[in-house]
Amino acid sequence: MEITPIEGGVCAAKGFSAGGVHCGIRKNTSKLDLALIYSETPCAAAAVYTRNKVCGAPITVTRAHLANGQARAVICNSGNANTCNADGVQKAQLMCAALARGLHIEETDIAVASTGVIGQPLPIDPILSNIDPLIRSCRKDGEGSRMAGTAIMTTDTHEKEASAAFSLNGKECHIGGIAKGSGMIEPNMATMLCFITTDAAISPEMLQKALSADVQTTFNMVSIDGDTSTNDTLVLLANGAAGNAPVEAEGEAFETFCAALHEVTTCLCRMIAKDGEGATKLLTCTVRGADGQETARKIAKSVIKSTLFKCAVFGCDANWGRILCAIGYTEAEFEIGKVAVWLSSKGGRVQVCRNGAGLDFSEDEALLVLQEDEVTVEVDMGSGEETATAWGCDLSYDYVKINGDYRT
Amino acid sequence: MEITPIEGGVCAAKGFSAGGVHCGIRKNTSKLDLALIYSETPCAAAAVYTRNKVCGAPITVTRAHLANGQARAVICNSGNANTCNADGVQKAQLMCAALARGLHIEETDIAVASTGVIGQPLPIDPILSNIDPLIRSCRKDGEGSRMAGTAIMTTDTHEKEASAAFSLNGKECHIGGIAKGSGMIEPNMATMLCFITTDAAISPEMLQKALSADVQTTFNMVSIDGDTSTNDTLVLLANGAAGNAPVEAEGEAFETFCAALHEVTTCLCRMIAKDGEGATKLLTCTVRGADGQETARKIAKSVIKSTLFKCAVFGCDANWGRILCAIGYTEAEFEIGKVAVWLSSKGGRVQVCRNGAGLDFSEDEALLVLQEDEVTVEVDMGSGEETATAWGCDLSYDYVKINGDYRT
Repeated sequence: MEITPIEGGVCAAKGFSAGGVHCGIRKNTSKLDLALIYSETPCAAAAVYTRNKVCGAPITVTRAHLANGQARAVICNSGNANTCNADGVQKAQLMCAALARGLHIEETDIAVASTGVIGQPLPIDPILSNIDPLIRSCRKDGEGSRMAGTAIMTTDTHEKEASAAFSLNGKECHIGGIAKGSGMIEPNMATMLCFITTDAAISPEMLQKALSADVQTTFNMVSIDGDTSTNDTLVLLANGAAGNAPVEAEGEAFETFCAALHEVTTCLCRMIAKDGEGATKLLTCTVRGADGQETARKIAKSVIKSTLFKCAVFGCDANWGRILCAIGYTEAEFEIGKVAVWLSSKGGRVQVCRNGAGLDFSEDEALLVLQEDEVTVEVDMGSGEETATAWGCDLSYDYVKINGDYRT
Repeated sequence: MEITPIEGGVCAAKGFSAGGVHCGIRKNTSKLDLALIYSETPCAAAAVYTRNKVCGAPITVTRAHLANGQARAVICNSGNANTCNADGVQKAQLMCAALARGLHIEETDIAVASTGVIGQPLPIDPILSNIDPLIRSCRKDGEGSRMAGTAIMTTDTHEKEASAAFSLNGKECHIGGIAKGSGMIEPNMATMLCFITTDAAISPEMLQKALSADVQTTFNMVSIDGDTSTNDTLVLLANGAAGNAPVEAEGEAFETFCAALHEVTTCLCRMIAKDGEGATKLLTCTVRGADGQETARKIAKSVIKSTLFKCAVFGCDANWGRILCAIGYTEAEFEIGKVAVWLSSKGGRVQVCRNGAGLDFSEDEALLVLQEDEVTVEVDMGSGEETATAWGCDLSYDYVKINGDYRT
């Protein structure tokens, strides 16, 4: 199977358009704050949501609307999470109702999402009065994807999109998405917000199956700060415009679709990690030689979450003892005496630990590795065949600055 | 029962002396880096250690020496953790052997501990050649406690000690300790390092029972950065010099001893949290009205560990949505719709949330609360009678600075 990266983001798939406007939730009038993604025809829909018990009102509404595995549009505002508000669900429903009227579709075919401050009433008037301009802003090209991708950003420093082409039974298909991350990122089921579209024909059941499996090794392996958001939502829409024989069971076509989905989600995860609040570096941990998949994942995530190691990476300090420490407190069974660790990047590759004990490595070589903006910690557990990868970022002064006065 | 705070720290109990010297592990010659605590007579000994699988070499040795429930002395260096080194156990044994010769006691009656950088060979000569000066430095008064308390510090900004007097069967008893914390603090069984002495007579079994129970609500409820250290050790020595009828079973005397121990450990925990690396504020979370003790503890700890809320506290921003978020992602069963939250300090008390939703509180009043150097988050779960308290600190620029170049 061949998966080819292409341009177009969430508009890469045929029959989808996207747009964004500044409606006024954010004070900065140059910052888009309301996004729309729309399919000309009905879509199979799949989604995953946060497992936080404090759950955004939009998630309650989206979950109900997508229960039948069908949807056609996604509306999303930034600047306010519409969470922990008494009238949150009602306002999320108002957003869907207004958009349904404008698009002449059913309310229940709309997914709704919000991101921003928790616990402040959502200003609904700016949204309702901007539904028509929002619909008019929609375009079928990459510019549409960029508008929507920009409108869902909070403290993200840039828009995040990825897309790929692949083939199902001789038909060319496309898949692409936009995402936002930044802070409060420790997805548990999904990331903060991610919307993916495809023109592949696939049943709602197989779409959900592909998505639920994929997030275990992609979005659930990202952590910026260990804070699982209240509003994590990932919606995947498939409109079948590619004309392939519908994927309705496991098999070669399903595997190809999963591979294409994985290409896009992995790409978005790396972007989210690298653009973590205040981040200066993408921090990747790959674990191999583990005797269980769960153990491999836990260790990879433990390393990229260690506050102390994240600070060391920010300071380009090869303090590998903190890596061993983070491996050691992982709740999993393994023999620490078999562990080997390398630091690698475009700047080189340095082994810092063998058999659970330190090596006399060159600090100069390690510095060359750590000065790059994408640094990988390779861990070999020496105990089996399982592998896992997790993505995070360093911890910088700017993370503290951004979050010391986020509301003010 | 009456528990009275007194002076004296780890030397408050009769028959104990303590001291410290600069032996040369640290470059700064004005910083003591080798500590000794010594009892004139044999002691019952209890201890708890880190659960990190990467475990400091001194812990291996101390665990073996204390297996018989007896000890008389503690030796501890700072500046090097003697962890992840091939010859670590051998060097920890050399420290004990040299001290045993100097004190004319058995090697197996000595607890040994190290704290500092992980994975760099421990310079053993500076320690071995300073055993005699170390023994000569010992004093029976508060100055001895301060020397030892200073010698075990790493990035701590000040020495930490606490002590109390109490009465067992008409005999006046004393208990006191020293501790160090700062970074890599998420104790799981104990804190980084804490040494407590008492002149109460109590059997090794009851001493261990008291200690193991106490750490569940004290040291295990402290978190600075979520990184469980490799070297956490808490040693408790009881020499019986108070002359009370030995505590050998549960009952009133045991309860009094536990209360006195709790007074000292709580005090040390608050000091460790308040002096977390880069901290400007002590952050306490009290949970009440929970339907289970475990739930109460998990929620309290989740709140004080939230990176985002820690930044908000640093910035004096009453961003209570982050408290709700942290409660929400706690792995425990509870109804979020019953939760109420207050912020309190010497500056006042402001309710920010009721029934899981925000209140229209005064930002000015909240600012007065948050500007104090000790801030409490009160959470009422509205579901039961269980309570718990956890201690942490805010997250500041200085935490990043300290840990960006710890080794260099």
